[in-house]
Amino acid sequence: MRVLNPAKELCPRVGVIGAGQLARMMYAPATSLGLELHLLAEGPETAAAQIFSRVRVGDYTDPAVLAAFAAEVDVITFDHEHVPTAILRRLQATGHLVRPGPDALQYAQDKWLMRRHLSEVLDAPAPLWRVCADAGELAGFGHEIGWPIIAKASRGGYDGHGVWKISGPQECTIPFAEALEVSAGEQVVILAEEFIDFSRELSVLAVRSVDGEVRSYPVSETIQRDGVCRETITPVPGLSPGQQGEIEALGRAIADQIGVVGVLAVEMMQRLDGSVVVNELAMRPHNTGHWTIDGAATSQFENHLRAVAGLPLGSTELRSPVAVMVNILGGDRVDLVGGLAEVTAAYPDLRVELYGKQVRPGRKVGHVNLCGDDVGRCLARARSAAAFLTNRDVDPANC
Amino acid sequence: MRVLNPAKELCPRVGVIGAGQLARMMYAPATSLGLELHLLAEGPETAAAQIFSRVRVGDYTDPAVLAAFAAEVDVITFDHEHVPTAILRRLQATGHLVRPGPDALQYAQDKWLMRRHLSEVLDAPAPLWRVCADAGELAGFGHEIGWPIIAKASRGGYDGHGVWKISGPQECTIPFAEALEVSAGEQVVILAEEFIDFSRELSVLAVRSVDGEVRSYPVSETIQRDGVCRETITPVPGLSPGQQGEIEALGRAIADQIGVVGVLAVEMMQRLDGSVVVNELAMRPHNTGHWTIDGAATSQFENHLRAVAGLPLGSTELRSPVAVMVNILGGDRVDLVGGLAEVTAAYPDLRVELYGKQVRPGRKVGHVNLCGDDVGRCLARARSAAAFLTNRDVDPANC
Repeated sequence: MRVLNPAKELCPRVGVIGAGQLARMMYAPATSLGLELHLLAEGPETAAAQIFSRVRVGDYTDPAVLAAFAAEVDVITFDHEHVPTAILRRLQATGHLVRPGPDALQYAQDKWLMRRHLSEVLDAPAPLWRVCADAGELAGFGHEIGWPIIAKASRGGYDGHGVWKISGPQECTIPFAEALEVSAGEQVVILAEEFIDFSRELSVLAVRSVDGEVRSYPVSETIQRDGVCRETITPVPGLSPGQQGEIEALGRAIADQIGVVGVLAVEMMQRLDGSVVVNELAMRPHNTGHWTIDGAATSQFENHLRAVAGLPLGSTELRSPVAVMVNILGGDRVDLVGGLAEVTAAYPDLRVELYGKQVRPGRKVGHVNLCGDDVGRCLARARSAAAFLTNRDVDPANC
Repeated sequence: MRVLNPAKELCPRVGVIGAGQLARMMYAPATSLGLELHLLAEGPETAAAQIFSRVRVGDYTDPAVLAAFAAEVDVITFDHEHVPTAILRRLQATGHLVRPGPDALQYAQDKWLMRRHLSEVLDAPAPLWRVCADAGELAGFGHEIGWPIIAKASRGGYDGHGVWKISGPQECTIPFAEALEVSAGEQVVILAEEFIDFSRELSVLAVRSVDGEVRSYPVSETIQRDGVCRETITPVPGLSPGQQGEIEALGRAIADQIGVVGVLAVEMMQRLDGSVVVNELAMRPHNTGHWTIDGAATSQFENHLRAVAGLPLGSTELRSPVAVMVNILGGDRVDLVGGLAEVTAAYPDLRVELYGKQVRPGRKVGHVNLCGDDVGRCLARARSAAAFLTNRDVDPANC
């Protein structure tokens, strides 16, 4: 059992729970820094398990599996936020380091806790919100502030699941009927929120080290479709330096207040009047930060690992005036590597990241980054490239 | 056995012979591109074997080992140039793809072949040179063109081994006495070359795809000490755009003429009058191209893999006005990761690449890259950081 000295000690052996693309993309910076990355994977063919040299396949809810995994690393971090805090607290109680820890992670796992905490402690901008015990209370909230409203399951949702737009009282039973399915049987509460007629969605990434050093990345505009992040543009076009600074400061303040170690993503909505409200938090590298691999001096993956391993953070500065990211969603092209030949010939400056995942319709199987001087040109080219890698019938050079 | 169609076919499963830092640094871009990288390693704890998920430990000169390795990949490439061409020709004869192939690779393995071919076919600038059968012929060359002269073993040298500076006739027996040791018993000839009183050493990297597309990177100044590359500065300070273009064109012409697939490094000496002569060729990612990881749109490692896998090449453009690389050579600091904490705190924009190798005095165990606007500042900061990671007594912020 290790002696804890979290503020001083370097943790070169980092264990990652979860074997998706986020874990996969941590591998390159870990290698560069000489960190030893270990994986606890759901299966041997998962995105990260294919490429890690140190892989344990097992169920993180199995105490024996988790104990064996924890024993071979200095610190544990995550590819996702699904590990119950009770499990993490047991790990801590047996002398293991967990970063981010459960005290921070709970605000990414439970939207109700998050809303309450950010409102009470930080007075962070939020939509009007209320916890509702039943359809009647939900309808009451709608009558009070006007329809439509948003209902959310407090736990278990992702990529648009567990969020309902409710147009009137007749739909108020739906969240209560579907919530348990979303949360896979876990107890949830239904949160009612004001429907924000937003002009666009934004995201800011902050990262906090063990020593409390906090850095933020430039704010991104994120373009979602059907609840799934599709594109990001960094920096946000037309955002004043003042508001850019305020949003970054908000991201840093949240990271600092909740004591996260690693990357924090704050997803926001920008109202038509320009003001922003916090939508959700994530405490891990985030889809809206994939642009940092090519567009920032230090990627979100490297900075997450630096924080988790007890190292100082790297510069978060932009490396070019504009950085655009477009997700590759599964389409009718199954052989993505095969598609690369044509698309990279058309775009020699395209940065492609494939996740090694089997293509299924709508599944995130990769992304492309383009850095340059002009938002419109970067976006058009990146969209065209991603579309070509998704569908065989798109002409890669036709943009 | 595969059907050969080298010009058209994509080779997503790439086998790398040799498990040093060059193989290790290929892993990140292979992962991004969705290529499956396999390793034939000298040992299980080598730089690349630590991090590859698909590792076979074995001796590449053992036909059974090599056949088994070749059977699991679509194409074979290299971390080093030590695989005898006879072995590679046998692989080709049994239907396996080898990139670069032995017809190109021979010019990196044999300095005599290289000098003869580049002089005869390309009229590439070279020092005066002659093959010498014994000490008498070597002395004759010296008498004819003036002392000192350079003697080189045609095969087997690296990092200054196998190269002798000969001040007069009395030293002319040395190369013949030591050559077989350098070449590990392999037959070599002794090449005499004019001693170039150079002002500095330069390097240009070119990369050639299966389809014959050739791209070059901006020329680098390389600072060597005791025959070992210590630093590179890109682009070369004070080189006229015309000469920059000529040197790049020479690199591309050599790559094209010898039909290399992958990266070709051309090391050159610049005479006091500004003209250049070719010194050596390497056909793999090269120490003088490590700056491309952070300083170029596409790194040499990614472009090497693209070429080998049959993909089009990526852009070789600089990403910032200046890119500086400084090697970390083994010193009295054994725990390099431990040193990172202080050095990265002092230099948040420092890009560190550690090779996972045990520290031994003078051994290349990593490098640092810094990109910026000012050569002097980048170089001073990178040198200070690398010195700190080598020696515990250096103050990282004191520069």
